[in-house]
Amino acid sequence: MNFDFFSDIRYELGIVEEELKQAVQASNQLLTDTATHLINAGGKRLRPAFCLLGGKFYNFDLDKLLPLAVALELIHMATLVHDDVVDSSLTRRGMPTVKARWGNKISSHVGDYLLGKSLILISRYKEPLIPKVLAETSVKMCEGEIIQISSAFDADQNIKDYFYRINRKTALLIAASAQLGAVACGAPAGVHQGLRRFGHNIGMAFQITDDILDMTAEQIKLGKPVGSDLRQGIITLPTIYSLQKSPNRNRLRALIAKKSKTEEEINEAIFLIKEGGGIQHSSEIVQKYIVKAKKELNALPDVPIKKTMQIISDFVGVRKF
Amino acid sequence: MNFDFFSDIRYELGIVEEELKQAVQASNQLLTDTATHLINAGGKRLRPAFCLLGGKFYNFDLDKLLPLAVALELIHMATLVHDDVVDSSLTRRGMPTVKARWGNKISSHVGDYLLGKSLILISRYKEPLIPKVLAETSVKMCEGEIIQISSAFDADQNIKDYFYRINRKTALLIAASAQLGAVACGAPAGVHQGLRRFGHNIGMAFQITDDILDMTAEQIKLGKPVGSDLRQGIITLPTIYSLQKSPNRNRLRALIAKKSKTEEEINEAIFLIKEGGGIQHSSEIVQKYIVKAKKELNALPDVPIKKTMQIISDFVGVRKF
Repeated sequence: MNFDFFSDIRYELGIVEEELKQAVQASNQLLTDTATHLINAGGKRLRPAFCLLGGKFYNFDLDKLLPLAVALELIHMATLVHDDVVDSSLTRRGMPTVKARWGNKISSHVGDYLLGKSLILISRYKEPLIPKVLAETSVKMCEGEIIQISSAFDADQNIKDYFYRINRKTALLIAASAQLGAVACGAPAGVHQGLRRFGHNIGMAFQITDDILDMTAEQIKLGKPVGSDLRQGIITLPTIYSLQKSPNRNRLRALIAKKSKTEEEINEAIFLIKEGGGIQHSSEIVQKYIVKAKKELNALPDVPIKKTMQIISDFVGVRKF
Repeated sequence: MNFDFFSDIRYELGIVEEELKQAVQASNQLLTDTATHLINAGGKRLRPAFCLLGGKFYNFDLDKLLPLAVALELIHMATLVHDDVVDSSLTRRGMPTVKARWGNKISSHVGDYLLGKSLILISRYKEPLIPKVLAETSVKMCEGEIIQISSAFDADQNIKDYFYRINRKTALLIAASAQLGAVACGAPAGVHQGLRRFGHNIGMAFQITDDILDMTAEQIKLGKPVGSDLRQGIITLPTIYSLQKSPNRNRLRALIAKKSKTEEEINEAIFLIKEGGGIQHSSEIVQKYIVKAKKELNALPDVPIKKTMQIISDFVGVRKF
């Protein structure tokens, strides 16, 4: 099956892509190179897409949406670059990271540069909700990142900790994208708040699916080694569930807490997590979030884009990459 | 001599300090700890000070100035934390850096957190010039940092490159502080643009003085080793001048371009720079910027704070720490 989920906004996403390239052109060659490298490394452009889809619920106007859509992707890219800043060895993914090619110090400043460019775009909006929501979101995203670092290798964290963390890390910016797309087009609170709740549920489903795929996907599709969360000590829903329910939870706990794991230990941990029902349970939770997302969608005004968004919602739960 | 240059705004600066501590309180202990560490490490609070002084030129209103003054210091602190992100060994200053205590990855996220908090404060302002100027300033500051990295150890850079770089690195945010303090209090363009030009000239004088002190100050007053710019390959005005004028410029050029310098080589380079007239020339340039700053001040409306600002201007050029 090869279905273009974003066909309704494909043209607009193409323009976002062009604007994105334009936005990062700097007077300095190194800055232009690193930022262009990031854009060419691709990405799903989920945040611009949800922003455009949000706009489809009320007087869709591409001119009003473009700076916001580009700013959302820049913010997302900045968090990725800063997340690549490391303390020890280089970690490489499908493409070399900015850190791997240019080092920590450049990553740090390039991330700030992308954030700064997003601020310039956002400062064009008169509607105060746009900077307010994005500022609050960016603070909470940092909290999420710091909590992820603080809680690394901690086998005692619970499901509530996990949801708190992935909401900050992922769902909030997707929720803000869907909401603010509508806000930028002048939608009333009833509409943009519904879109925010839709985005929240889709964002949660998206991140849990990501965390499942980190244990189940083929490396080639994932673009990074399987088990990379476990390797970094990031404890996700499948692990938390199996740490509570698996008959082999003591062995799993010992493996999880190890700061340095061999390939065999990673594979054994994934095996125990699967055996303990962690993947199965997590998939059920994804479905619950998708049901909630679709309920929010149903309550929104009847516009043609709703059908597409239902299809996208279903896809989030079954994607394999 | 012990003169409190900021006595006219000492009370307000005290409130800024309290607000700064409040602003960085996070739900996460590690975030609160790192941010509080940064605040307690001190600093001249130059940006809040110039913001408050700018406000004194037009219907001074502390309530209108506080969020901006705090945001300016948070932006400055964020750039310092991100500047501490390194690729190899730890570098320690008077106080251990966030990087030295908590590592690159935490530094990266703490900087973003401070920036995010500043955005929340800035999003309260309805006057569009405030987010616009700050967004443009933050982009240019990143350009300055990247240029500094790209041009490290490059003995061919000229005085124009240097001025371009320190304007971005330092003067722009000080100019924005003085300007936006007036903007926040509702000052007309004639006033806030004059304050911006004043801030630019003071900021340039301030950074050149910093660069001189890096070669002439006592380590204890500087809070970091003398010659640290040379060690990092950062080529400043005294060096550029002596690379052009010193009879020993070939020897100096060879020393400057060395990626790793011994203590003896650092001392020899500083000796050659002084001998070549680089410090003397740089001090003259500082004086020129101070004269320009005071001219801008003279053209501004006659308010009581002008006298203090003239004294501050003179001090920038003679400070020893």
